[in-house]
Amino acid sequence: MIPKGFLFSTVEAAIKKPGRKDLALIYSQVEANIAGTFTTNNVKAAPVKLDIKKIKSGRAQAIIVNSGNANACTGKKGMEDAIEMTKLVADGLKIKSSLVYVCSTGVIGAPIPMERIRPKISELIGNLSMSTVEDVASVIMTTDTFPKIVQKNVKIGSKTGSVVGICKGAGMICPHMATMLCFIISDIAIHQKTLSKTLNIAVKKTFNRITVDGDMSTNDTVLVMANGMLGNRQITEESKSYTAFKNALYEVILDLSRLIVKDGEGATKFIEIEVKGARNEADAEKAALSVANSNLVKTAMYGNDANWGRIMAALGYSGVEMKEEKIDIYFGKVRIVNRGISTGRDREADVVLKRRDIKITIDLHRGKSSANVLTCDLTEDYIRANAAYRT
Amino acid sequence: MIPKGFLFSTVEAAIKKPGRKDLALIYSQVEANIAGTFTTNNVKAAPVKLDIKKIKSGRAQAIIVNSGNANACTGKKGMEDAIEMTKLVADGLKIKSSLVYVCSTGVIGAPIPMERIRPKISELIGNLSMSTVEDVASVIMTTDTFPKIVQKNVKIGSKTGSVVGICKGAGMICPHMATMLCFIISDIAIHQKTLSKTLNIAVKKTFNRITVDGDMSTNDTVLVMANGMLGNRQITEESKSYTAFKNALYEVILDLSRLIVKDGEGATKFIEIEVKGARNEADAEKAALSVANSNLVKTAMYGNDANWGRIMAALGYSGVEMKEEKIDIYFGKVRIVNRGISTGRDREADVVLKRRDIKITIDLHRGKSSANVLTCDLTEDYIRANAAYRT
Repeated sequence: MIPKGFLFSTVEAAIKKPGRKDLALIYSQVEANIAGTFTTNNVKAAPVKLDIKKIKSGRAQAIIVNSGNANACTGKKGMEDAIEMTKLVADGLKIKSSLVYVCSTGVIGAPIPMERIRPKISELIGNLSMSTVEDVASVIMTTDTFPKIVQKNVKIGSKTGSVVGICKGAGMICPHMATMLCFIISDIAIHQKTLSKTLNIAVKKTFNRITVDGDMSTNDTVLVMANGMLGNRQITEESKSYTAFKNALYEVILDLSRLIVKDGEGATKFIEIEVKGARNEADAEKAALSVANSNLVKTAMYGNDANWGRIMAALGYSGVEMKEEKIDIYFGKVRIVNRGISTGRDREADVVLKRRDIKITIDLHRGKSSANVLTCDLTEDYIRANAAYRT
Repeated sequence: MIPKGFLFSTVEAAIKKPGRKDLALIYSQVEANIAGTFTTNNVKAAPVKLDIKKIKSGRAQAIIVNSGNANACTGKKGMEDAIEMTKLVADGLKIKSSLVYVCSTGVIGAPIPMERIRPKISELIGNLSMSTVEDVASVIMTTDTFPKIVQKNVKIGSKTGSVVGICKGAGMICPHMATMLCFIISDIAIHQKTLSKTLNIAVKKTFNRITVDGDMSTNDTVLVMANGMLGNRQITEESKSYTAFKNALYEVILDLSRLIVKDGEGATKFIEIEVKGARNEADAEKAALSVANSNLVKTAMYGNDANWGRIMAALGYSGVEMKEEKIDIYFGKVRIVNRGISTGRDREADVVLKRRDIKITIDLHRGKSSANVLTCDLTEDYIRANAAYRT
């Protein structure tokens, strides 16, 4: 169920190779509240810098997004181009340009071909329709192997609102920077501050806890627009229906983040790493990310090898205080390490590791906090995809 | 030229597969000063923990080292075994066990087979000779493809001293944890505090600035023994000959660290990353390591791809303050990025990238400090080597 009042459009602007649509528009028929999170990379693409400024208003009505060019490391010209993209859309839609956001993904360091985008704007706006959100999900794909869409309903009194999220994952383009772009739309009325806070909490435990190769993009952007067209009383943190909205938004984002990992470059396995028994959540997350980003752990998983020594070493260099002799490690339900020592259950662990979905649980026995991080294995296909020369 | 007073020995103790020597002894005929640096991994192998205690005395006469088993994550038993190894050698050599150090590399988490080591100690001691330092370098190899030995002479007045270093590199065993072990011996008389300080300075700029896969071992150890048998007056930092010794030690360690990177798992390219124009050396090192550890940069180098956007992104997430619009990037002498913007010299850069030795220079234009980090490319062979099941 598509949230009320949202329209979508896609066109081919020849930014990518011919035959692939590469420009999309998400439009709300009324002004919406908006919240966002952005890459923390010091090097930010022009559209990211621009959106960070715009989002201070908390208001939005349209998002234009292109693939094929990241408009990153493009200097003053890049910023002028990003601004022009929002102005072209604003003029076409006859709305204020402050309400238009822009996102780009693709090649870094090449100027964005405005001469090919400009003449396509009227077609982009003319094509707006209710039924093409899947097309937008396809346009933003780079080396993703499938479009990523998640939808959840939210009961608010007698009404049913909708939250739809689309995203592109950690694939390379041309084969350039992995960029994560995510757009979430909802017809539910929710206070902007509440929306922003809810988004930040959800992203912290989802998108910020997935890793394919440990490389952070210059373009990562998550935007959520809520236009209130459901007609419910505006939700705040005190509202009865807040929990339902919060859960729906969290689930949409969690599902999308799982889809990104499942579609990781060259991945053959989906790996969930839970660190529990940590002194605090920050420690748990740090330890789990250290294991998830270890090339040695990821190649062992690819090779179905119950190589827990590599997990122990990655925990050891994570910077988190721990005692080796307290640590338990499980592959699935098989305890492979008991209080720092091998249990010798390698053969049982091997059975678990042959699955496509693997859960690794690490108990530090230092406290009561935990964190889950999602990752994938590291394979020859990752190398091939990323060593191929740009074409 | 082997330093005076040092003897070496190797035997096969069946810790590894049959037919490969796996136990070695380095012995000084007189007590020597010793200094060392060890892994900063929170999870440390038993021999590392033991040596850290012993080295407080600053004195040593022998080092026993085995490959095939890391004696890491082996609990109390592991520590008892490490202690027993030093005692067996001490008894055989009729020296104090406090003067005997032990290093291990190989499988993590499996008990070290003392029943196979014990009966070999007398043969190990019986075999001691002057000419077999190369054999020791071979014994400590794991997936290294060549033994690593470097020798430098040091003129001290009318005498000529010698510094010899051997090491094993970042190869996996069985295919387990990469461990870096390095043993340096010299016949030069040098004050223990001076030796220790000189070693620390050298390691900081050499071994601590190489990276193959970003994974830090539980067993990394560097030991330097100086037995004074050259008969020179003991060197301190004030001595005229201190600079010559310091330079020789630094060069031995630098050369060894280069050999480790050249022999990195699956590597086809040797990559030197220099970050200059940093506000301080710590910033320069951090930025260079961020680039050197980026899987995307390493695969691009493998693919001969002048993909500077990945370098820019890795700089951006390094945590070092920088301004994108000030950054210059060079491949060899080709400036590919000028003040944050592409120069378009991709074709010239491609020529540089086809070489086996590649220098990447990054100028942050923020200050006057610099740091050089050595790394290698990331290839399918790395994945294959590390995904292969333990045998």
